Amino acid sequence: MALIVQKYGGSSVASPERIKKVAERICRARKSGHQVVVVVSAMGDNTDDLLSLAAQVSRNPPEREMDMLLATGEQVSAALLAMAAQAMGVRAVSMTGAQVGIVTDRAHRNARIQDVSAQRIKQALAKGCVVIVTGFQGITPDHEITTLGRGGSDLTAVALSSALKAKICEIYTDVEGIYTADPRVVPNARKLPSISYDEMLELASLGAQVMQARSMEMAKKYNVPLHVRSSFSRRTGTIISKEVKAMEQVVVSGVSLQKDEAKVTICDVPDRPGLAATIFTGISDANINVDMIVQNVGRTGLTDLSFTVPRADLKKVLRVARRVAAKVKAGRVIHDEDIAKISVVGLGMRSHSGIAAKMFQALAKESINIVMISTSEIKISCIIRKNQAAKAIKTIHDAFGLGKQR
Amino acid sequence: MALIVQKYGGSSVASPERIKKVAERICRARKSGHQVVVVVSAMGDNTDDLLSLAAQVSRNPPEREMDMLLATGEQVSAALLAMAAQAMGVRAVSMTGAQVGIVTDRAHRNARIQDVSAQRIKQALAKGCVVIVTGFQGITPDHEITTLGRGGSDLTAVALSSALKAKICEIYTDVEGIYTADPRVVPNARKLPSISYDEMLELASLGAQVMQARSMEMAKKYNVPLHVRSSFSRRTGTIISKEVKAMEQVVVSGVSLQKDEAKVTICDVPDRPGLAATIFTGISDANINVDMIVQNVGRTGLTDLSFTVPRADLKKVLRVARRVAAKVKAGRVIHDEDIAKISVVGLGMRSHSGIAAKMFQALAKESINIVMISTSEIKISCIIRKNQAAKAIKTIHDAFGLGKQR
Repeated sequence: MALIVQKYGGSSVASPERIKKVAERICRARKSGHQVVVVVSAMGDNTDDLLSLAAQVSRNPPEREMDMLLATGEQVSAALLAMAAQAMGVRAVSMTGAQVGIVTDRAHRNARIQDVSAQRIKQALAKGCVVIVTGFQGITPDHEITTLGRGGSDLTAVALSSALKAKICEIYTDVEGIYTADPRVVPNARKLPSISYDEMLELASLGAQVMQARSMEMAKKYNVPLHVRSSFSRRTGTIISKEVKAMEQVVVSGVSLQKDEAKVTICDVPDRPGLAATIFTGISDANINVDMIVQNVGRTGLTDLSFTVPRADLKKVLRVARRVAAKVKAGRVIHDEDIAKISVVGLGMRSHSGIAAKMFQALAKESINIVMISTSEIKISCIIRKNQAAKAIKTIHDAFGLGKQR
Repeated sequence: MALIVQKYGGSSVASPERIKKVAERICRARKSGHQVVVVVSAMGDNTDDLLSLAAQVSRNPPEREMDMLLATGEQVSAALLAMAAQAMGVRAVSMTGAQVGIVTDRAHRNARIQDVSAQRIKQALAKGCVVIVTGFQGITPDHEITTLGRGGSDLTAVALSSALKAKICEIYTDVEGIYTADPRVVPNARKLPSISYDEMLELASLGAQVMQARSMEMAKKYNVPLHVRSSFSRRTGTIISKEVKAMEQVVVSGVSLQKDEAKVTICDVPDRPGLAATIFTGISDANINVDMIVQNVGRTGLTDLSFTVPRADLKKVLRVARRVAAKVKAGRVIHDEDIAKISVVGLGMRSHSGIAAKMFQALAKESINIVMISTSEIKISCIIRKNQAAKAIKTIHDAFGLGKQR
């Protein structure tokens, strides 16, 4: 008998019918003798509906109240799932992040988990219950409701898996696993049987939308084995775990595409030490995650500083950037929303050279201009024009021979 | 500067537009110098939507999970209202029943308030905030979410008014106040400027749907002055307070009609002491409120025992009644859903005779048959056929001269 954590995303619980399907799966796992903890997202469009309601009453809704509002979404789906499971004869109980004891800091809408007590879960499991936990949310030490930001339900699942020492954390989603590229864009993309945390971490941060970077970081840190799989089939998906030998033979595991970033440039920044720190401290204080940072070649004493941020944060970023720019006596702040980021990721890059050259050649062959470049040990990313993104990912996927064997 | 509690029902916050209207009213009260605590119900049809979702996943949803589900409704409206008020420049903060410290017993879906700490509310008020509290819900000492049953938001408002020693508890609704009869049924019904707790208590328990009996009981017990008024106008409504001199001159204050009950009869109950206690203990253990009880004329050693219950509880009641009937060796359990209860209420009845006779005469004149009768010090209720209800209330309203002066 093993303890399994299962996480179901919004599309898996989008309707009462789908909730019943999920309940069936939970009951199967329970009846085969496992202890089951379920983490659930809000139903399908529920979060969008709530965001739209908020937009109708306030142009700039306070984040504390947004958390009060948004946290209801998972409470609804968790309660419904518990009902559905009980109707199928399995004891089940829903719990909120507050009840479970998922304690976070006070950064509303993007809170970080500080502690997971999980005491109540253990008690309920000991009684033979399936425990259904609201994903995406926690509570501060002074009982304020917080949400964990994008992909927060994955984070909840990984944190609980770690706290409960789960055998596996199953991430149910609407795709069959992790692919060499997004199959909607690259038709001959291949499903990977396994992938390492580090590769997945790069893929996640680069827009393979299956799992979010923060969850992968936590999974890696606490060595929580993940199984990304479809809630609509019983096929095995992709196992994410520590690096394994077989993986090293593959140079590039996948190509990812991210289209939800925007590029911001602060022009004519005085070229003095400490100014970059001032700028990015200001932005980080506003809880915005900056992605790529490039400092362009400077003219005498002045440089242009470019960086990318989630497009959803652009308004906030521009406000902060303009304030900071004025403070450090820099010039205009300009932005560009029509960009895409394309990246190749692979553990094998560490011991193979020429990967970057191959990628740039593939792009050049299709006359795709590169706006920014950034590299890490196991990935290379290029910012390109958004309207060339689909062409770019196909040509790179082919160049690295990632497609299915014909 | 006074402390005011305002309670807004579901129709008052049914849409973002209405929420903004409510926010305006809150801001007006705040800006005129009052401390304001707001209790809010779920948006319009939200509760029905949630009930429908539950019905789609389970034929018999567990009550604990129903509370998890239903409690989200008020959390949504409270957060939205706080956003709307802040957008109008008034500091506002939403709080759940759990955060406020509304501690209840464990009777899910019909919990009773045991304690109100309100400590957090006082702190927020001291900082100049308007506090917006989710109505209808509380939390058990072991952190289970509970709901207070029908009219639960009124109960929250009254409990908070008492705990905070509010000057007045304003109950905003979609009618202008308390009328001599339901104006939708009796067109010449008159709005009462004031009414006593006791009369309102009878009217509430008898289906004048403005306020629920439990809230009135609590208001009376803690002497919380209420002002029932419309959220769509600025006119004064009806003040509910302790008995005042002027009231005594009126014999009958109002006529009420209740159509949401069903009559249950346990036939052939052995006529032994203690059996009624056994029967009604069984029903009360299931958290069902029995209303009228009549024991019909018995044949040798056997009696028929009839009582009325909320029609929503009928299924549950029948289950319990059949079990108890078998236990005490009684006969069949039959039920009748096509009934209505019509009642006249008035403090003046205590010192006036002939009220019952006048009521029965009015019904007889219209050939309306009386199925059950029950009386208290200040009310007389008759169960009649449901299809004669409208005719009955009009004729009684006229008989007591309650209509507007022409």
